[in-house]
Amino acid sequence: MVEKYSIRTDLALEDTERFEEDNIEVSGVTVEEEWDEEREIRITTVRILTENGAKTMGKPVGTYVTLEAPNLAVPDEGYHREVSVTLARFIRTMLPRKEDCQILVAGLGNREVTPDALGPWVADNLNVTRHIIKEYGKYAMAKENVCSVSAIAPGVMAQTGMETVEIIRGIVKETKPDVLIAVDALAARNSRRLNRTVQIADTGIRPGSGVGNHRNGITRETIGIPVVAIGVPTVVDAATIVSDTMENLLAAMETSETLKGVGVVLQGYSAAEKYELVKELIAPHLNGMYVTPKDIDETMKRMSFTLSEGLNILFEREEEEGQG
Amino acid sequence: MVEKYSIRTDLALEDTERFEEDNIEVSGVTVEEEWDEEREIRITTVRILTENGAKTMGKPVGTYVTLEAPNLAVPDEGYHREVSVTLARFIRTMLPRKEDCQILVAGLGNREVTPDALGPWVADNLNVTRHIIKEYGKYAMAKENVCSVSAIAPGVMAQTGMETVEIIRGIVKETKPDVLIAVDALAARNSRRLNRTVQIADTGIRPGSGVGNHRNGITRETIGIPVVAIGVPTVVDAATIVSDTMENLLAAMETSETLKGVGVVLQGYSAAEKYELVKELIAPHLNGMYVTPKDIDETMKRMSFTLSEGLNILFEREEEEGQG
Amino acid sequence: MVEKYSIRTDLALEDTERFEEDNIEVSGVTVEEEWDEEREIRITTVRILTENGAKTMGKPVGTYVTLEAPNLAVPDEGYHREVSVTLARFIRTMLPRKEDCQILVAGLGNREVTPDALGPWVADNLNVTRHIIKEYGKYAMAKENVCSVSAIAPGVMAQTGMETVEIIRGIVKETKPDVLIAVDALAARNSRRLNRTVQIADTGIRPGSGVGNHRNGITRETIGIPVVAIGVPTVVDAATIVSDTMENLLAAMETSETLKGVGVVLQGYSAAEKYELVKELIAPHLNGMYVTPKDIDETMKRMSFTLSEGLNILFEREEEEGQG
Amino acid sequence: MVEKYSIRTDLALEDTERFEEDNIEVSGVTVEEEWDEEREIRITTVRILTENGAKTMGKPVGTYVTLEAPNLAVPDEGYHREVSVTLARFIRTMLPRKEDCQILVAGLGNREVTPDALGPWVADNLNVTRHIIKEYGKYAMAKENVCSVSAIAPGVMAQTGMETVEIIRGIVKETKPDVLIAVDALAARNSRRLNRTVQIADTGIRPGSGVGNHRNGITRETIGIPVVAIGVPTVVDAATIVSDTMENLLAAMETSETLKGVGVVLQGYSAAEKYELVKELIAPHLNGMYVTPKDIDETMKRMSFTLSEGLNILFEREEEEGQG
Repeated sequence: MVEKYSIRTDLALEDTERFEEDNIEVSGVTVEEEWDEEREIRITTVRILTENGAKTMGKPVGTYVTLEAPNLAVPDEGYHREVSVTLARFIRTMLPRKEDCQILVAGLGNREVTPDALGPWVADNLNVTRHIIKEYGKYAMAKENVCSVSAIAPGVMAQTGMETVEIIRGIVKETKPDVLIAVDALAARNSRRLNRTVQIADTGIRPGSGVGNHRNGITRETIGIPVVAIGVPTVVDAATIVSDTMENLLAAMETSETLKGVGVVLQGYSAAEKYELVKELIAPHLNGMYVTPKDIDETMKRMSFTLSEGLNILFEREEEEGQG
Repeated sequence: MVEKYSIRTDLALEDTERFEEDNIEVSGVTVEEEWDEEREIRITTVRILTENGAKTMGKPVGTYVTLEAPNLAVPDEGYHREVSVTLARFIRTMLPRKEDCQILVAGLGNREVTPDALGPWVADNLNVTRHIIKEYGKYAMAKENVCSVSAIAPGVMAQTGMETVEIIRGIVKETKPDVLIAVDALAARNSRRLNRTVQIADTGIRPGSGVGNHRNGITRETIGIPVVAIGVPTVVDAATIVSDTMENLLAAMETSETLKGVGVVLQGYSAAEKYELVKELIAPHLNGMYVTPKDIDETMKRMSFTLSEGLNILFEREEEEGQG
Repeated sequence: MVEKYSIRTDLALEDTERFEEDNIEVSGVTVEEEWDEEREIRITTVRILTENGAKTMGKPVGTYVTLEAPNLAVPDEGYHREVSVTLARFIRTMLPRKEDCQILVAGLGNREVTPDALGPWVADNLNVTRHIIKEYGKYAMAKENVCSVSAIAPGVMAQTGMETVEIIRGIVKETKPDVLIAVDALAARNSRRLNRTVQIADTGIRPGSGVGNHRNGITRETIGIPVVAIGVPTVVDAATIVSDTMENLLAAMETSETLKGVGVVLQGYSAAEKYELVKELIAPHLNGMYVTPKDIDETMKRMSFTLSEGLNILFEREEEEGQG
Repeated sequence: MVEKYSIRTDLALEDTERFEEDNIEVSGVTVEEEWDEEREIRITTVRILTENGAKTMGKPVGTYVTLEAPNLAVPDEGYHREVSVTLARFIRTMLPRKEDCQILVAGLGNREVTPDALGPWVADNLNVTRHIIKEYGKYAMAKENVCSVSAIAPGVMAQTGMETVEIIRGIVKETKPDVLIAVDALAARNSRRLNRTVQIADTGIRPGSGVGNHRNGITRETIGIPVVAIGVPTVVDAATIVSDTMENLLAAMETSETLKGVGVVLQGYSAAEKYELVKELIAPHLNGMYVTPKDIDETMKRMSFTLSEGLNILFEREEEEGQG
């Protein structure tokens, strides 16, 4: 397979699109698409089944569910509520066992940087219950089947001097939850997905993902309990957006009527030569820079509320669902 | 000794004042006072030496240094800097061993409630270095003798569902600092001390202290390493301020010219009877209420900066001091 | 009438209670009480009809509607929504004319001080529309009868160096709204009313009211358009809570079995003498201090959301209501 | 002159660089460069003298002073202080008359979006004095020659529903300052200038400038008093960074050894044809997107503090300077 200029995305969905363009089938990876017509949500489930698939995709073996709901951009409270309910349903399928109901939610990211504040904002809106259940028992809560929920917004390494995984692992060992739900802002490749897409994965958080670049992964291996990762893309890497446009330029040149002479010449060059050309021109000072929309505050405020509501609904575990 | 209506204060200094009024010597407790004339700082060192002293004072055995600097109310940058330097000097005397230089700072409290946000604000302004030293060694830092500093603002139980001590203990076990410095907003008895007084103690944080009422103590016993507690009073308990004024009322009545008949009658009653009278009248709804000044934001912003600067100065450990 | 120790409250309802205790009828003031059984909201309408009534009450002529909903303390979203709807209905009755639909909302107070941040938080959650209507007309909005809404959080004098009324008057002259709705945190006398009571008044904001003490009133006289004031008590003045308890003490003494001798003596003294006694003892350093509950952040977050939702519902003016 | 693909920059300095590259002299524009060796600050003064110059530059007639201090990236307090002093000196030269000492500072931008929060953060740190001088006179201030300073952070149109100029004009008419100083986050073309460059201009704020895109200008014409604009670039437009890189690509192709055939072909095409090619490929969804560094919070916090300190120094107007 021809190696393309490496595109940074945290969405497994976008990795598969990379191959679809070229009509390449990736062995060890399955993709299923569902369309919730009523709510206008596209649900894509990417399953990476083998180590080979993982290598090709650049993501670990596991299941990645992506909900795309373009209408999330609109401040319609009723619609956001429906998405919360749908989210609760899909997050539940990721929880390893039905009876695991002691949950720690980690709101990852830096609350001082708007596009990285998703995790902390979600943590802020959660209904935590662990301390109440611990003191008064489950009967103290209005609903009997309520989960024990705790939450932490640990900050980022530049604020704490510690790896996020060190903090989380320490808290997990002390408080012994059944499962960690890690919420984080993600980087997408396609700017149209920002703040209206949610990815739920049973793989944990991997090095280099997220806006804040948590160096060491937060996974079952590193913290000892299953990790469900929930992410919303809030930024596109600056290098990604530039290289993306430049690939378009080269492609256009090869077929351009105006510049068809260029096309002819370019066709004589290998992908590797073109790749080198692009790479050179993406200035090193673009490292650590990201692209984000100007109305990020409003869309993120809504999105983080929709996410925390989804988690609150999930953790309440109505009677009927407990029986189902 | 006649038991007075119990006054809530986190300052050991104010406990001693309670006894001074009555000219009572408390066995097992020593008090030393120093006056820094140049900087106009009153420094009081209270040492609780015996369990008996601890019981009388209502505070654990240990050393409590209080710096009172009324001029901290004035926004004079140069003066605040001098107080930072003085603070660094006194905090250093509390560190168990000279060579302990791996420090975790815990900024306790709730950043959403202004008078409880002192700890988180101090954590925000710290120069954390642990991650840099871990990756590049001490030589990466401009100064060779720099300490390894990490920081966490864990939030309060109502936000996290976890006891603060659980979070801290977990992080301490994972990251193995030599000492914990816990910064917290305190309750004072005297409103004139708010935001211009700092208490440094080698005893850790005790149950029921602080604005946010951390149920379980954060002490050497509970987390396994020495704990230096730094606190600034930012509130007075509402019950305290009321009972304080009422004691004044009763005292005034006993000597009042206008109401001298009352005084005569009151003198016939025991302290216990008067205490009952006061207790009944402090309505239960005052529980969980505090008194705080209206300009709390400005004075706390300055004070938290002065504190974090004190810590930053301390952790830099200049060459000369390293040799001293 | 015997002048009592002056109690600071911004709630007209609490002024009337002062007189009720003494069975005094205040001429020029009417009080109506309504009980919304379904929603458990007590609605009290105080009308100050004459200048004499105004003088006795210490509040200007006008109508004051107070909604007391103790259940607002509970985080029940459905219930808060119902209160929002009720609020919208009552605020509408205060608007001078049905067709006045160009609204400026002023969120008064200091967003850096939690109990004073109510106004700014309400402004943050409003759906402003003026700029959209100005550019695209009303048809651009989903609903035809939508009002033109603008909002400002001007900050407080210590931040701006300007009287709030100067800022508001300037903006009103430039943007010409029909009516100003001023939202502000209030001081109550009774701490049980904090964060679960809303007062709506057609009198504007008066000097000395609110947490932040806006020196010059924001009224029809000073800004040239009608002013509807919406307030939620978030604090009790420290002096109020102390003097309140002390009055209880004196009252108790007069009837106390334990101290009945005192009662006999006190009965011989005039109200003025007792008032002097209390006044002396409320230390001057209590000025500028307030009492506020520890969970202020959560209750205020909910309450400000309920208020802004009430305003959003009001401004949308459904079709049916437009016809009514 | 060949029209290049239009680059968005708020820095006059960067407009001149565009012409320098092509060795074009722009009539009606002068550029002076100064190097403060001690402080390592490059100071460039661009003067647009004629309407013709203004048209070519895309900026109004006036003086633009740019201070570039790469070391501002380093958290060295002493150095930041020196830059504050230098800033005060240059801002003073922009004030229309020496005796104009009633200053309104407008902190423009959205405090909820980190890279747009510069203006509000600067306003937060200012020493406002107008209310004190108005009440007690200048002698109340420690320094006799102190200016009357007021400040406002009006928010952005999406929050207020009003044009920023409407709010400012209203406040100016009411409070009658001599001069407005408007502080705003800017867009640069070169990402290396972010958060370490300050532009001071006597032209006011123009439509389409700033991060938040204030539609109508804030200028002497629109508000009636002189406007000094102070800006710090905090973002690069996403479209700018992409088009910039693509121009590099085209330039590289024309001279590339690897692809020299392409170069030959491209040389046959006009600038207009190449411009069209680039324009097509910058996707419309890049509108409203910006590029910003990940450590924006720390660098902006420092920079806004340095700016507000510069203004505080300026407004204090020491005795000696008053005589100078």
